[in-house]
Amino acid sequence: MSDRILLGAFAFHPGGAHVTGWRHPSSRPAEHLSIRHHRHIAQTAERGVFDTLFLADGLYFWDRYPSGVDHYGALRPEPFTLLAALSQVTSRIGLAATVSTTYNEPYHVARTLASLDHLSGGRAAWNLVTSRYDEEARNFGGDAHIDHSRRYERGREFVDVVNGLLDSWDDGAIVADPASGVFARRDGLHRLDHEGEFFRVRGPLNTARPPQGHPLLFQAGGSESGLELAADTADAVFTRGGSTADVRRFVDDLRARAVRHGRSADAVKIMPSVMPVVGETAADARAEADAILALTPDALILEDVSHQIGQDLSGRDVDVPFDYAEEFDTSNETRSPKPAVDRLLADGPATPRDVYAWSYRRSLLAGTGPEIADRFEELTDDGGADGFIVQFPYLPGGIDRFVDHVVPELQRRGRTATAYDDLTLRERFGHPRVPDRAHR
Amino acid sequence: MSDRILLGAFAFHPGGAHVTGWRHPSSRPAEHLSIRHHRHIAQTAERGVFDTLFLADGLYFWDRYPSGVDHYGALRPEPFTLLAALSQVTSRIGLAATVSTTYNEPYHVARTLASLDHLSGGRAAWNLVTSRYDEEARNFGGDAHIDHSRRYERGREFVDVVNGLLDSWDDGAIVADPASGVFARRDGLHRLDHEGEFFRVRGPLNTARPPQGHPLLFQAGGSESGLELAADTADAVFTRGGSTADVRRFVDDLRARAVRHGRSADAVKIMPSVMPVVGETAADARAEADAILALTPDALILEDVSHQIGQDLSGRDVDVPFDYAEEFDTSNETRSPKPAVDRLLADGPATPRDVYAWSYRRSLLAGTGPEIADRFEELTDDGGADGFIVQFPYLPGGIDRFVDHVVPELQRRGRTATAYDDLTLRERFGHPRVPDRAHR
Repeated sequence: MSDRILLGAFAFHPGGAHVTGWRHPSSRPAEHLSIRHHRHIAQTAERGVFDTLFLADGLYFWDRYPSGVDHYGALRPEPFTLLAALSQVTSRIGLAATVSTTYNEPYHVARTLASLDHLSGGRAAWNLVTSRYDEEARNFGGDAHIDHSRRYERGREFVDVVNGLLDSWDDGAIVADPASGVFARRDGLHRLDHEGEFFRVRGPLNTARPPQGHPLLFQAGGSESGLELAADTADAVFTRGGSTADVRRFVDDLRARAVRHGRSADAVKIMPSVMPVVGETAADARAEADAILALTPDALILEDVSHQIGQDLSGRDVDVPFDYAEEFDTSNETRSPKPAVDRLLADGPATPRDVYAWSYRRSLLAGTGPEIADRFEELTDDGGADGFIVQFPYLPGGIDRFVDHVVPELQRRGRTATAYDDLTLRERFGHPRVPDRAHR
Repeated sequence: MSDRILLGAFAFHPGGAHVTGWRHPSSRPAEHLSIRHHRHIAQTAERGVFDTLFLADGLYFWDRYPSGVDHYGALRPEPFTLLAALSQVTSRIGLAATVSTTYNEPYHVARTLASLDHLSGGRAAWNLVTSRYDEEARNFGGDAHIDHSRRYERGREFVDVVNGLLDSWDDGAIVADPASGVFARRDGLHRLDHEGEFFRVRGPLNTARPPQGHPLLFQAGGSESGLELAADTADAVFTRGGSTADVRRFVDDLRARAVRHGRSADAVKIMPSVMPVVGETAADARAEADAILALTPDALILEDVSHQIGQDLSGRDVDVPFDYAEEFDTSNETRSPKPAVDRLLADGPATPRDVYAWSYRRSLLAGTGPEIADRFEELTDDGGADGFIVQFPYLPGGIDRFVDHVVPELQRRGRTATAYDDLTLRERFGHPRVPDRAHR
């Protein structure tokens, strides 16, 4: 917990986090791959003095269900390409790209990260994911996704290799002195010669050490392996959110894990994910939430709920109740926790539309600017959060409203900055520059 | 050959193509990884109405020789990251990135290319290379580079997969209609399901088909496999240059190959590489060439010549002649053609400095603006070239001079444009948009 609340603006899809947010009147779905749309989002985030922009990613198109093609605005530009473009139309905001350590090579990632950090003046970040869909594996020569714990072992080694490559050159090793003709100091150059279980990488990297030393590393803490990797290597973690007590538990657990890994308790900044829907009045915010809910066609509701509960509901009527416990064989479940199923088991029959509305509403934080600011303060002061990854059900309208109504309130209360200072992204997160090899 | 001469501005290293071009008084070696330096180069190229910017690349740092670290300004930003940034500070110029098909995955490359093409409004291009240095292999888990012909077989399949992924969506398949809730037309979506020797890729791509359909594909025609791949798949080729007769032979050969592959004779635009050194007078140009030559320290001359002739000259005096035929065992050579060796064998003893100066000067085209424009016209009208990949021994001064002195002359003669038209890069190269799957 700190006085200052960190803000990350999350773009799940170009149209927002809600599955049909692209239908919102403020959206521009025909521009999801063009710079104009993303420039507006990034510049609005910068107007709100967000610490970072944060782009989700997946290495596949979700064509598992027909309605996913018909109705789901799931096209995305490649994150680093987009962030590099945005680096030239923004000046201070962080630029965080989601990177799969399962389907990438560390040499490419280290180089791209270092390049973005140089070109943006110390604003690059990466969000480590391990990719879990079979569709992703099949775009990279595999049949099914790799076992969860193996993916995290690879992720762990990936971080080591990337950091090692980023340290190829000591900070002052690039002399670039035209008079003497000395370009680089040999004693400031380090070959990596990494030989691990997953990677063999010689190095050195052909870019100089970037402004942040190591660009900021995000992770999403979920599973046991994910939490351990984050506690050991991440600079910041975003987590599901939930109640103040849920956040407190998560924070205490992750801080204890960081200490067990020999790091300080605040070495990892913890940012629960929140999805505000902002209104002038509370009733206005609820109406807006209902309006977003109503954007989803019935076919997509059926397939979305099928996906959530792991059972096929296609062909049903979205408004006819079904009894999960009665209708499906759940005797041999190996599913990960699915809140929608727990709700169905607890409450008995429900319609698919009910399940959809329930699971959608529980992820929302609807209210006025001051109400949302109150909640941010509570999750920070009582929950121990360092900041928030702010999701928007639709874009760009969702971030416009947030910056117009919530940010001024947070600023008035002295909880977020009113202007950028002259720090790198890493420093803004309270982390010093990682020293080079010569200074450890 | 055509009336209109295509121009590509080549950035070999940020400091230029000459090994110590970074020492030139106009250079800014401390800014090689920052946007300011590259923005100046790109905006100058755009001021000269260049058709494209063209970035070389390698996936390693050249630390084989100590002097390569000490004196050779070989750091580079990752090309796609740099070009995406440059897309926002330029408006019309093409943006070509060198891509290794040996150490990349086609899904990533297709997606990045498509993203850059969307974000730049139809200006993306790629230059296919297969990477030939052991240092590159060792950054990606290998020991030594893969056999030449295997690399080209992989490159061929790589192009097929990238093009197939770029065709995942028909042109009008992304409807994005908020009123009906239809985001995409299912019948306009094509899964690739590629199963080849090197790649298994399911698709579809999670970006819409880019403005150019298929972003422009460059290749460098050299070896037999390289020429065949280029004749079969490239939209443009750059080649070593040489005499008008050399260029004519290359052009006739490549056009005949294209026809044998069932393409039209002008399906591949042919752009010899030239390296102008421009002066107000011929004497001024020669003096400038000498000044660049003198920037190279003796240690680097020795190692550069060692590298060129494949024999170790370290410890020698650069000004003491050696006799190649007498001193080295050349009985069991498997070397590729090395002009420096041929010159040494033909002319007898020479000093390392002589060899360096000779090999450097033969790559230069020194002269006044009109003299260089004459040469461009000759290589076009008699040699059959479609345009030129223009290299600059030092940057940014080299491109400043070219745009100030050569471009106006070419424009006055009506051989290059004085302003950009409203075409995509592909169209500017005289190639129509590649039709989508529904229109073949």
